[in-house]
Amino acid sequence: MIIVTRKGVTAEELDHIRERVESYGLRTHVSRGEERTIIGCVGDEEALRHVPLLSIPGVEAVHEVLKPYKLASREFAAEPTRVPLRDAELGGRALVVIAGPCSVEGREMLEATAHRVQAAGARALRGGAFKPRTSPYSFRGLGEEGLRILADVRAETGLPVVTEVMDTRQVELVASYADVLQIGARNMQNFNLLTEVGRLQRPVLLKRGMAATIKDLLLAAEYVMSQGNPHVILCERGIRTFGTETRNTFDLAAIPVLKRETHLPVIADPSHAGGRRHLVAPLSYAAVAAGADGLMVEVHPDPATATSDGDQSLDFDEFDAMMSGLAAFAEAAGRTLPRAAMIAG
Amino acid sequence: MIIVTRKGVTAEELDHIRERVESYGLRTHVSRGEERTIIGCVGDEEALRHVPLLSIPGVEAVHEVLKPYKLASREFAAEPTRVPLRDAELGGRALVVIAGPCSVEGREMLEATAHRVQAAGARALRGGAFKPRTSPYSFRGLGEEGLRILADVRAETGLPVVTEVMDTRQVELVASYADVLQIGARNMQNFNLLTEVGRLQRPVLLKRGMAATIKDLLLAAEYVMSQGNPHVILCERGIRTFGTETRNTFDLAAIPVLKRETHLPVIADPSHAGGRRHLVAPLSYAAVAAGADGLMVEVHPDPATATSDGDQSLDFDEFDAMMSGLAAFAEAAGRTLPRAAMIAG
Amino acid sequence: MIIVTRKGVTAEELDHIRERVESYGLRTHVSRGEERTIIGCVGDEEALRHVPLLSIPGVEAVHEVLKPYKLASREFAAEPTRVPLRDAELGGRALVVIAGPCSVEGREMLEATAHRVQAAGARALRGGAFKPRTSPYSFRGLGEEGLRILADVRAETGLPVVTEVMDTRQVELVASYADVLQIGARNMQNFNLLTEVGRLQRPVLLKRGMAATIKDLLLAAEYVMSQGNPHVILCERGIRTFGTETRNTFDLAAIPVLKRETHLPVIADPSHAGGRRHLVAPLSYAAVAAGADGLMVEVHPDPATATSDGDQSLDFDEFDAMMSGLAAFAEAAGRTLPRAAMIAG
Amino acid sequence: MIIVTRKGVTAEELDHIRERVESYGLRTHVSRGEERTIIGCVGDEEALRHVPLLSIPGVEAVHEVLKPYKLASREFAAEPTRVPLRDAELGGRALVVIAGPCSVEGREMLEATAHRVQAAGARALRGGAFKPRTSPYSFRGLGEEGLRILADVRAETGLPVVTEVMDTRQVELVASYADVLQIGARNMQNFNLLTEVGRLQRPVLLKRGMAATIKDLLLAAEYVMSQGNPHVILCERGIRTFGTETRNTFDLAAIPVLKRETHLPVIADPSHAGGRRHLVAPLSYAAVAAGADGLMVEVHPDPATATSDGDQSLDFDEFDAMMSGLAAFAEAAGRTLPRAAMIAG
Repeated sequence: MIIVTRKGVTAEELDHIRERVESYGLRTHVSRGEERTIIGCVGDEEALRHVPLLSIPGVEAVHEVLKPYKLASREFAAEPTRVPLRDAELGGRALVVIAGPCSVEGREMLEATAHRVQAAGARALRGGAFKPRTSPYSFRGLGEEGLRILADVRAETGLPVVTEVMDTRQVELVASYADVLQIGARNMQNFNLLTEVGRLQRPVLLKRGMAATIKDLLLAAEYVMSQGNPHVILCERGIRTFGTETRNTFDLAAIPVLKRETHLPVIADPSHAGGRRHLVAPLSYAAVAAGADGLMVEVHPDPATATSDGDQSLDFDEFDAMMSGLAAFAEAAGRTLPRAAMIAG
Repeated sequence: MIIVTRKGVTAEELDHIRERVESYGLRTHVSRGEERTIIGCVGDEEALRHVPLLSIPGVEAVHEVLKPYKLASREFAAEPTRVPLRDAELGGRALVVIAGPCSVEGREMLEATAHRVQAAGARALRGGAFKPRTSPYSFRGLGEEGLRILADVRAETGLPVVTEVMDTRQVELVASYADVLQIGARNMQNFNLLTEVGRLQRPVLLKRGMAATIKDLLLAAEYVMSQGNPHVILCERGIRTFGTETRNTFDLAAIPVLKRETHLPVIADPSHAGGRRHLVAPLSYAAVAAGADGLMVEVHPDPATATSDGDQSLDFDEFDAMMSGLAAFAEAAGRTLPRAAMIAG
Repeated sequence: MIIVTRKGVTAEELDHIRERVESYGLRTHVSRGEERTIIGCVGDEEALRHVPLLSIPGVEAVHEVLKPYKLASREFAAEPTRVPLRDAELGGRALVVIAGPCSVEGREMLEATAHRVQAAGARALRGGAFKPRTSPYSFRGLGEEGLRILADVRAETGLPVVTEVMDTRQVELVASYADVLQIGARNMQNFNLLTEVGRLQRPVLLKRGMAATIKDLLLAAEYVMSQGNPHVILCERGIRTFGTETRNTFDLAAIPVLKRETHLPVIADPSHAGGRRHLVAPLSYAAVAAGADGLMVEVHPDPATATSDGDQSLDFDEFDAMMSGLAAFAEAAGRTLPRAAMIAG
Repeated sequence: MIIVTRKGVTAEELDHIRERVESYGLRTHVSRGEERTIIGCVGDEEALRHVPLLSIPGVEAVHEVLKPYKLASREFAAEPTRVPLRDAELGGRALVVIAGPCSVEGREMLEATAHRVQAAGARALRGGAFKPRTSPYSFRGLGEEGLRILADVRAETGLPVVTEVMDTRQVELVASYADVLQIGARNMQNFNLLTEVGRLQRPVLLKRGMAATIKDLLLAAEYVMSQGNPHVILCERGIRTFGTETRNTFDLAAIPVLKRETHLPVIADPSHAGGRRHLVAPLSYAAVAAGADGLMVEVHPDPATATSDGDQSLDFDEFDAMMSGLAAFAEAAGRTLPRAAMIAG
């Protein structure tokens, strides 16, 4: 922590600031400038994090020196983290595409989708059983019935299942079916939920909140990791800005920034970021070009009849086309992308 | 719902759009312009809300006609809602100031604070027992011990208690102590939590999320109300924008906009909005001038030693001064503000 | 300037960083922490402002210590600046309301407006002759004819005239008619225009840009002041955020923040901030409650026929009502507000 | 234009609304719903654009049906516009990379840069002679001397020159040297400047403003085009959001949205968008993957000594590496990228 004092700070004020800092076990180091005096605080910065330093007379500004996350930081791990997903893993050289409907609407539609996306190269199946909806009058998912369908389709296809958990009371239930527990954007700072999923050893897919900074996202990951669960996948899915032409503003640069800041794998959700079908392919290609380890894409047998997110869901042919186009970008990015043939073979 | 079609839409496309809309039980009404044809959809708009109309060939844009919330809308209630708070009520002519520490740190500090803020005119006591914290390494509150202290101090002073509930599993526990259940900004779209507090008859203080629009906030209130709980207090506490000079950006205009859109009472939280002590008074005065029904203000016996939010907490003298200044603004706004003498008397 | 080095920075890197800083004439002061080493740079920070310090190997972060503006900063002036406006002044105890139409549409409408707003207590007349319009197909003002009308109405009423200048080529012309040169939000960083108006001794009303931070606004003022013109009035008129319920997001807290950061007077423009007539009064009252030195309000004889901004313009009766309501808030804020009678008398 | 009326609108109000609309030469078309009545306005929507419809009693909301820009819209042109740049053109299959220093600092550095970027495949040279700077105390460019150097280096290399014009008074001067006139982000809504560059036949590179929507950007292009200049290049360079980890937030999705909305070519500026050297390559690759027609990249012989933007400028080797990496992405996107050999040959 670095403390910048006000112009004309008095000797008494300086002494008082130093005493306060030192009372938390840190040492202070004073550097007198021509207009401002600066106090460097040496020691365990964590101890100072919540001290209201700005309230001490004579203090003008405070700058953090250390990042508030530890386990999620790049420095903490020698190698990028690879999250196991049954036969696959996320965070290695192979690009992982997770695909499936927004909501599990029934067995048949999920089976059909799973087979088609698998044939096109997807390595995991997404599908919501518990759905967070902005309006209380919207469809909120099939609940446990949806989870059972997901598990059955996994049994058929071998595709690991990614599904959302919204409530601390559902963690155990969802974990009994899912391979990856998804935390939605609106729950990114539901700290009790983060704590609960951190207590399991099941991978967590953590979506960035609409108003979350990179630091907020990494602190949310830290919540999970600090409970003992090292398998967190970060997902950029767009932030809220003044823009209205897209559902959210896809913060593409977050991908390379995160790849530099953390050892955790980073994926993108082009469906929610853009909110329109025609944007899914260009955003997917861009995400991979920028270094993403994977994608999560909404696919539906008939988007026009989807119970949710139909405007941003690809139909099967569109998904096939997107995956075909993706291959060259994956290669340009030094990634491998498993093909239908390889999997079917 | 109004559907705007693309330039050059074909007759087949128009027919298909109409059929889709009519299949949901609405009637359509076509208006041909020189460049665009418009389809008005007459009937239960709710049925169309989640139909992916933009995905139907020929559709260019879709405009909602009705507000997606009902119970929270101005039209639903003849009179402004008044939320009972023991002897007081929020939403009437009397301005209600809720004051107290960010976190309950102990019995003595809470007692001292309660007595002082009551003497200065506060009508309710705030204090966190369960604290949402951005970092997993921060103090997260005293938990049930904090609730017990709040209840004890209420017994002493008669001040109703406002405290946060963060987890569906804690709703019953918190409700057994609190007069008002606070839903924090980060949980504004924790829909399961909203549903749970909606099942009680305890008033809910709902803080606006950092990226929440007015519509999002009212839909969150609708979640609570649709479960049967009519007593929701809305709280503007600042949104996240590009600004860095304040902790959040206080969206003052949200107050008169909400007063026009809904019958629910609206308060402001100047402490979180500004994030600095010197901003609490001007933001409070402005909120009242703009029509707020109340304020929620952080007060601490010694802000410099507070475990959380010390930089934005007033000390006792500052709170007294703020309340003294507030009286004239309350009067200018046609509000009454109970004084120390009146209460003490 | 404070330089934070990367974890594991080498001695060579440290030496190189210090050499670079010292080559600009500053001294360096090294403070070794447990995880990070910090280099304080003592001397003329301005010399370092544009050195790409982040590009030097071993540097992780750079924090500014001094504000980049000087003349506009609080520290530069012992007293708040008072800007003369003919008989009145802006920045003293008397609240100054500037009122008038968005655009000067003709002589009669301006005369009528000027007389009515003056009777209600306005101390200056606004009206656009050169209008910045988002679309090239919109009405762009009467040009010099509009300026002539403004000057004539000033001759009749004695009200000083505030009008916008958009182009360096027009500065001389506009200054030959106007008492105050307004720089619009879209031109807040038109640095050549700021420089030109800085060369005159005419007061400048500088509106905050839609994406401008407080620092950006003060640097724009610094442009004007650094040319020798000390009379800059700052105007908060809303910023652009994700909000859509109001035209802009009124950043009310900018008012007390600016009053603390600078000696320049600060006014608010509730018409542009809210964009709707019913918001003008509550936003005006709030601005005054938060410490604004004045207001700029759009008033039109018949808003429904206005060529621009009709949706946010008050009619005469609405303006009268707003001014009546304002009196009590002005008094609560320790301000005086001249009344019709006083002026008429 | 579609007008939605308030619930309970009276017959008189309806009549009055229709009369107002019809007085502008449009026809009205009323559609009565169960809760709301809608009035479709058929005819020249432009005539209604600035009528304050929201101020008419009974009106609740107004929706535009037509885009406010014409010449810039996709529908206006059968084919994508190709902007000639000497031997090259922007907007065709060949990707165009514009590279060079932020500011022209001298002849030697510009020559060296031009030769290196040309060898690596750049097809145009950028360099600022007039620099917009946030602070009045920063270096503002060499002025006409800078323009002369640019022209000399063009004579040597054949590279067309892109340089900024900031002031209506400089348009003629800058145009006498430059091949492309750049309008900076801060001047995107300097409407007089847009008008002036629209009067020439010189291509204009229009950078998106920090708070500009897609619609605002296209209306700014419309200003230029409505004066007779069809050669506008749009440039996404990041918008201002709550994010602080990058200089701006790169709105990647704007690229495919613009490619759909307009026939004008679209490029990206990864240097300003990210603000850090290590982000230039990933953002460039992503922009091309998303459909950009070109890139504008800052390159400097020694970024650590640059007078401006050093932290985001690539050195020669970094630029070479970026261009090498770009080839595969260009190919994946169906684009050609001229190589050093081809040009040198």
